[in-house]
Amino acid sequence: MPNLIGFRCSLCGVEYAPDQLTYVCPKHGDSGNLDVVLDHTAINRAASPASISASRDFSLWRYLPLLPVADPGAEGTPLRAAGWTPFYRADRLATDLGLHASRIFVKDDGRNPTASFKDRASAVVVARAREIKAEVVAAASTGNAGAALAGMAAAVDQRAVIFAPQTAPPAKVAQLLMFGAKVLLVNGNYDQAFDLCLQASREFGWYCRNTGYNPFTTEGKKTAAFEICEQLTLTRNPKPQTPNPKWAVPDRIFVSVGDGNIISGIHKGLKDLLALGWIDKLPKLMGVQAEGSAACANAWAVGTEDIVPVSANTLADSISVDLPRDGVRAVRAVRETGGAYLVVSDDEILDAMRALARRAAVFAEPAGATSYAGLAKAAREGIIDPDETVVVVVTGSGLKDVKSAMRAAGEAVRIEPTLEAVRLVIGTG
Amino acid sequence: MPNLIGFRCSLCGVEYAPDQLTYVCPKHGDSGNLDVVLDHTAINRAASPASISASRDFSLWRYLPLLPVADPGAEGTPLRAAGWTPFYRADRLATDLGLHASRIFVKDDGRNPTASFKDRASAVVVARAREIKAEVVAAASTGNAGAALAGMAAAVDQRAVIFAPQTAPPAKVAQLLMFGAKVLLVNGNYDQAFDLCLQASREFGWYCRNTGYNPFTTEGKKTAAFEICEQLTLTRNPKPQTPNPKWAVPDRIFVSVGDGNIISGIHKGLKDLLALGWIDKLPKLMGVQAEGSAACANAWAVGTEDIVPVSANTLADSISVDLPRDGVRAVRAVRETGGAYLVVSDDEILDAMRALARRAAVFAEPAGATSYAGLAKAAREGIIDPDETVVVVVTGSGLKDVKSAMRAAGEAVRIEPTLEAVRLVIGTG
Repeated sequence: MPNLIGFRCSLCGVEYAPDQLTYVCPKHGDSGNLDVVLDHTAINRAASPASISASRDFSLWRYLPLLPVADPGAEGTPLRAAGWTPFYRADRLATDLGLHASRIFVKDDGRNPTASFKDRASAVVVARAREIKAEVVAAASTGNAGAALAGMAAAVDQRAVIFAPQTAPPAKVAQLLMFGAKVLLVNGNYDQAFDLCLQASREFGWYCRNTGYNPFTTEGKKTAAFEICEQLTLTRNPKPQTPNPKWAVPDRIFVSVGDGNIISGIHKGLKDLLALGWIDKLPKLMGVQAEGSAACANAWAVGTEDIVPVSANTLADSISVDLPRDGVRAVRAVRETGGAYLVVSDDEILDAMRALARRAAVFAEPAGATSYAGLAKAAREGIIDPDETVVVVVTGSGLKDVKSAMRAAGEAVRIEPTLEAVRLVIGTG
Repeated sequence: MPNLIGFRCSLCGVEYAPDQLTYVCPKHGDSGNLDVVLDHTAINRAASPASISASRDFSLWRYLPLLPVADPGAEGTPLRAAGWTPFYRADRLATDLGLHASRIFVKDDGRNPTASFKDRASAVVVARAREIKAEVVAAASTGNAGAALAGMAAAVDQRAVIFAPQTAPPAKVAQLLMFGAKVLLVNGNYDQAFDLCLQASREFGWYCRNTGYNPFTTEGKKTAAFEICEQLTLTRNPKPQTPNPKWAVPDRIFVSVGDGNIISGIHKGLKDLLALGWIDKLPKLMGVQAEGSAACANAWAVGTEDIVPVSANTLADSISVDLPRDGVRAVRAVRETGGAYLVVSDDEILDAMRALARRAAVFAEPAGATSYAGLAKAAREGIIDPDETVVVVVTGSGLKDVKSAMRAAGEAVRIEPTLEAVRLVIGTG
């Protein structure tokens, strides 16, 4: 990969050559997450905002020149269909919140092939796996990350092994099995499944996709930042007379935060674009956590990078995390961009699910709607200016968690099969 | 609408002017489904395969010149995001079936905004509702059609009323409620809900979307045929030197059939393209029904258009239908194109779900995978030539019916959290 210069430890800043290591900084055990270092000069020789925007590839692979992997081939498969998700205008939500009607956008990543943001990471990790000729990709997961890996692996006949705690909901296990992954239900909790996955990957030579631990997950997730900037530019000027030499940036991006890898991935993408000179400033990154799972928000609030584990308890299962696996970078993403962390209750998350579905027609899972709950709170508390341009990232489809949707949805009206019964109900609004 | 000439009864052929009626032929009660008659000369003045293929609108609205509705506006909402679903190459499935590896394609309509093919119909019906200034759109449904109407209506702040039998699964009711539709659970079966919806629509002046009964549902669904032809053309020649004057057609299209409105919609789209001179022949339409719900297949087998109701019983709930509401046109679609009907068992449908997920990375609901079960049977029985180009339409996401996915998926392996346990399992393959 000509553009891949190496890896830099996010804790101590030491740099390593691409072939020196695979996962984390050896000085920091399993927590020394690595940033991928790219050759920006080479990228700028090969690509530009104009060349990307002329691409007919409507997936995250339109950004291949900015990724540290080779073209994975596999044209015409779901691996090539990850990313380039819808970028909706949410005028009615804006009005509801007292904000400028044409400046609130929803990035709906529930429209990915396996219905979550995690397809971005898994697509790029599977591409990397093919490059290094890994026979098996393994991951510990109870939900979206596992489904994404299983799906992207199935697209290219890559073997996948998923370690899940035996408490994983049967529905999510079914999704993993459907894609043909080997699913090992571990008699233990998620942390034990996680450790066993690391151990087994070392023992059997499997390529481990664990979030944060594998530096290519962040590189996949950064593509959401590229899309936000490019799609915002297109929204403002769909048919430019001359190609845009730079991309626009919103004032703020609201992101749900669990293990912290999505917000750090978006931060990485924005930093790449700034270093390339393709954007002029960084938007403020707004991390939103459930109050029952707020380790990053807690650290940010007291100005530290020391993440203290919590005992997580929220209905937003995809961001229910004791110890965020990418917490340090998640705190930095907010601090370095002048953003803020917000904490919302489960009731606020349920409100956000209803608002997104009814006022923007986006059906999100609880973790997916948490970002919008944060925007609603920020608007209520006057944290944002009504004229700001804001993007809310929805990370997963509501169909992933029907039980929570049923909690949010309320009750249907029951009637006898008569016109009179309909009349009575309609009369009540 | 300059292109809308009128409506033609599919039973007696009588034509009506656009403002003469709204739903069905008055001579045939509720079963006289109408074909929309378009001004092909006017369409050919306004558009061509080349002009469509140059469009930057990657949704079904790229075909607006071929639709009988005005531009609904609503840019940047999910209404504008329906259609233009992925068109995957399924090389491994082809090889598994002994067919030509690069000629089997899967059209994944589970990737629509509310995760089913029904978004096509609902998007166009909601556009029509805005045009005729309907205050309320109503429909009877237990599943995908209702969710699609509720979602498309929410996108544009259109009021929607859904009548569902009280036996409807709570999960599907939750999806309807989330989008803010008024959901009336009727103390009766689906047929009673259907009749009550017709009655209430008349009484309260609501615009009724019931499938088949409303002629615009077919017009929305026909866009899948447009996409199949255009995407197949793109697959063969992604960057033509000169724009293609015509579109390619596959040899066969496999479609799951329940009430028959999807296959008749695809047939209508193909007939439009042929009349316009944009394609040179009709592909053979292959209707696939579950053996527990095979009213159309039964009629086709004995060469009649008299559809005899069955007592439907199949796990593929979206195509579980006693009396197909668009049965006559569904039988004709197959007969007039030289295709065939195939009947598959529930076990074959579960096999098809596994094959699609594992070998093409497409997670389909049972009704969605029924089309592929039909292709597998046709290949086994030598009904198709191995060199034919074939498209399989997947009509809904597997996330819509997790219970059936659990039936298809099989069991995960349970292990203790030790390396030795992993070793034992991996050793067994």
